[in-house]
Amino acid sequence: MEINKIITKLLSDVKEHNPLVYHITNYVTVNDCANIVLALGGSPVMADDQNEVEEMVSIASALVLNMGTLNQRTIESMILAGKKANELGIPVIFDPVGVGATNLRTETANRILNEVKLSVVTGNMSEIKILAGLNTTVKGVDSTDGTVGGEKIAAELAAKLNSVIAITGATDIISNGKKTYKLNNGHEILSKVTGTGCMTTSLIGTYAGVTKDYLLAATAGIMSMGLTGEKAYQQLASSDGIGTFKVRIFDNIYNLSEKDIIQGGKLNEC
Amino acid sequence: MEINKIITKLLSDVKEHNPLVYHITNYVTVNDCANIVLALGGSPVMADDQNEVEEMVSIASALVLNMGTLNQRTIESMILAGKKANELGIPVIFDPVGVGATNLRTETANRILNEVKLSVVTGNMSEIKILAGLNTTVKGVDSTDGTVGGEKIAAELAAKLNSVIAITGATDIISNGKKTYKLNNGHEILSKVTGTGCMTTSLIGTYAGVTKDYLLAATAGIMSMGLTGEKAYQQLASSDGIGTFKVRIFDNIYNLSEKDIIQGGKLNEC
Amino acid sequence: MEINKIITKLLSDVKEHNPLVYHITNYVTVNDCANIVLALGGSPVMADDQNEVEEMVSIASALVLNMGTLNQRTIESMILAGKKANELGIPVIFDPVGVGATNLRTETANRILNEVKLSVVTGNMSEIKILAGLNTTVKGVDSTDGTVGGEKIAAELAAKLNSVIAITGATDIISNGKKTYKLNNGHEILSKVTGTGCMTTSLIGTYAGVTKDYLLAATAGIMSMGLTGEKAYQQLASSDGIGTFKVRIFDNIYNLSEKDIIQGGKLNEC
Repeated sequence: MEINKIITKLLSDVKEHNPLVYHITNYVTVNDCANIVLALGGSPVMADDQNEVEEMVSIASALVLNMGTLNQRTIESMILAGKKANELGIPVIFDPVGVGATNLRTETANRILNEVKLSVVTGNMSEIKILAGLNTTVKGVDSTDGTVGGEKIAAELAAKLNSVIAITGATDIISNGKKTYKLNNGHEILSKVTGTGCMTTSLIGTYAGVTKDYLLAATAGIMSMGLTGEKAYQQLASSDGIGTFKVRIFDNIYNLSEKDIIQGGKLNEC
Repeated sequence: MEINKIITKLLSDVKEHNPLVYHITNYVTVNDCANIVLALGGSPVMADDQNEVEEMVSIASALVLNMGTLNQRTIESMILAGKKANELGIPVIFDPVGVGATNLRTETANRILNEVKLSVVTGNMSEIKILAGLNTTVKGVDSTDGTVGGEKIAAELAAKLNSVIAITGATDIISNGKKTYKLNNGHEILSKVTGTGCMTTSLIGTYAGVTKDYLLAATAGIMSMGLTGEKAYQQLASSDGIGTFKVRIFDNIYNLSEKDIIQGGKLNEC
Repeated sequence: MEINKIITKLLSDVKEHNPLVYHITNYVTVNDCANIVLALGGSPVMADDQNEVEEMVSIASALVLNMGTLNQRTIESMILAGKKANELGIPVIFDPVGVGATNLRTETANRILNEVKLSVVTGNMSEIKILAGLNTTVKGVDSTDGTVGGEKIAAELAAKLNSVIAITGATDIISNGKKTYKLNNGHEILSKVTGTGCMTTSLIGTYAGVTKDYLLAATAGIMSMGLTGEKAYQQLASSDGIGTFKVRIFDNIYNLSEKDIIQGGKLNEC
C-alpha cells in the first residue's frame, strides 16, 4: 500500500536525523518513553522546570505533552513549553492521559487545547470523547468505550481544533478532519503493559520531528507500536508474560524494518 | 490448605473485576507497581496533585500510600486521599518506606497512622518496629532485622491500630491482632531487585480491591510475590541475573495460577 | 594489569560492605540506578525533600547528585545534601546531565561546583567542556563531541576543581589532575539505552562507598559498565534489540567477576 511505503521513508528519516524529542511527561512511564524514542532512532530529552522549558523546546524537533501525573508546577511548564513551540513552529503532540477522571485533568486539557496549537492529540476513546464534549464513563486512565463511531468524532474534533486526532483502541482512528484512516494493527496484550499509550505518543512525536505531515506522523507512530505488539506477542513462549512482552516491545521497535511496515501495515482510508 | 483455596478465589475475582488501584507512591518503583497491578489483573492509576487526589480516590477500589520518595507536596496529598478513602469506605494500604531513616519519614508515618484509618500496614521488620515504637537500626530503606519475634509485634500493633500488619522478610508475618499467619514463600534474590516490597504492597492493594477481608488480601499479596519469586528464580540460567529475574517476576504474576497457589502456598497460622 | 587486580578487590569490597549509595537524581532513570547499585552489591536509597536530605546523607557511604530532571526544589536539596556530605567526609559524585542545554542547568552545575567539594564529576565530552568553560554544541542530554583531546581537558579541570574528572565516550578518560587513564571498554549500543550514563555514575558512587581512591572508584565504575556492555552485546540474538540488551546489563553487572575484570579491562595510563 502506498502509505506504508511513505511510512518506511519516515522511519529511515528518523534514523538519519535523530530528532530531539522533548517530553514533559509523567513519572510512571517516562523511562519507557525515553527508550522507545531511542529504539526508533530519535533522541529523547525530559525536563520540566519552568525556568528551562522554553530553552529546551527551542532545541527540539518535537514537543510531547503528557499529563499522566500532572501537578500545578508541571501544568504551567506544559503551557509555557507549548506556547514557545508554537512560536517556533515546533510540532506539539498532546496526550491528555486520564482526562475526565478528575476536574483538574479536564480543566488542564481544555486549557492546553485553548492556549496551545496542537499538531496531534492522541488518546483512547473515552479521553477523546471528553475532549469533544461527549458523554462517557472514565475509569482511571483506561478507556471504557470501544472505538465504534470514532471516525465521526475524530474528524469533527480534528476540524474544530485544526489538529490531527488519533483515537487508539482495537481499531485505531486517525483524522485530520479531511482525511481519516483506520488502522488494524496491534494486539490486546498491549493494554496489559503500562505506558504503551504513552510510548505510542512518543513515537508519534519522534516521527513528527522529521515531517510536517502530522496525519502521517500519527499514523506511523501508532502503526509502529501496533506492528511491534503483534511481533512481540508472536515471540512469546508459554511461560512468558507481560515482563518478556514488554522487553520485546523495545526489541521490535529497535528492529522495525521497511518490510515489517510494507507487509504488515493494515491501514485503510475511511 | 483451606486458605490457599480461598486465595485462588480472590485471584479470579481480581481477574473478573479489574479493581482500580490508586497509588500515591514514589518515583523509583512506580512503573513496576503499575505493571504488577496489571499483571495480576487490576487496573493501576497514579496521581498526586492535591487538587485531584480526592476525586481520584472516589473512583478507586483501593488506595496505596507509599512514602518512598515523599515530599511536602505529596505528604499532604496522601493525607487528603487517605481521609477521603476513609469517608468512602475504600481500603487504604500503607507502606512506610524508610520510616526511621529520617525524622521526616517517622513524623509523616505517625501522622498518617493518626489521621488515616489504615486497612493494611506493610513493611520490613525495621520499619514495623519503628511504627511500634521499638528500638532498631535503620539503613536507608532496607531492614537490618530478621523477623524473629515478629508475631508478637505484629499482633500488638495490629490490635492497637485496628489494622492488618504485614512484616515482610525471609518469613513473612501477617496479623489482624486476633489471627496471625506465617508465610514461608519467596527467595532471597527478591531483595536484590528494587521495588519488590513496593510491588508486594501494590498486589495487596489489588486484592484489597475485591475483598473486605484485609488479612486475606495482605496474605494473598505477599504469597503471590513469594510464589513468583520462587518460580522466577527456578527459571534462571547461569548467565542470568537480576535483569532477567525482574522480567520473570512480571511474567509469573501474569501467569499465576490456582495450582501455583494451592500447591505452593506455605502458610501457617501461629 | 595491576590496576585491574586492584579493581577486583574493590568489587569484592562492595559485595562485602554493601555501601549505602544515596541519590538525588532524575525521575527518568532512577529505577535503573537503584537496580544497578543492587546488582553490583550496594544498597541504593533515593530521597529529595529538603527536610530529610541532610539526615539521609549522614547514614550514606556516598552521595550521587544527578541533575537529569532538576527543579527549583531539588536543586536546593542537592546543595544541602552536598554540603552536609562535605562536612561528614562522604564522597560526592556529580553527574551534570544536560549542562549547557539550558541556562538553568549551566547555572546549577556551576553553583554545585562552587558550593560543594566534589569527589568525582562525570559526563560526556560536551558536558565536561561546558564545565571547563570551553565551546561546544549541546543537543539535549547527548554529546556532540568525540573525546579526542579529552586528556588535557580532564586533567586541567581535575586540577582546578581538585576532583576526579571522568569523560565517558567511545574512549573514556579519567583524571585526577596528576594521573590520567584511558579506558577502551564498552560498546556503542550502550548509547541506545537511556540511563547508561546515569547508571555508570551510580556504579562510581557505589565503588566510592568502599574506597577513598576516587580515581580508582571512577575507573572501576566506568570499566564495570563497559565490560557489561560488551558482554551483553555478545549475548544478543539477531531478533534481540535494546530491550533485551538492557535486561542483560543488569544480569552482567550482577554476575561481574574478577576474571571479567582481569581479562577484559582495557585500561592505559596516558
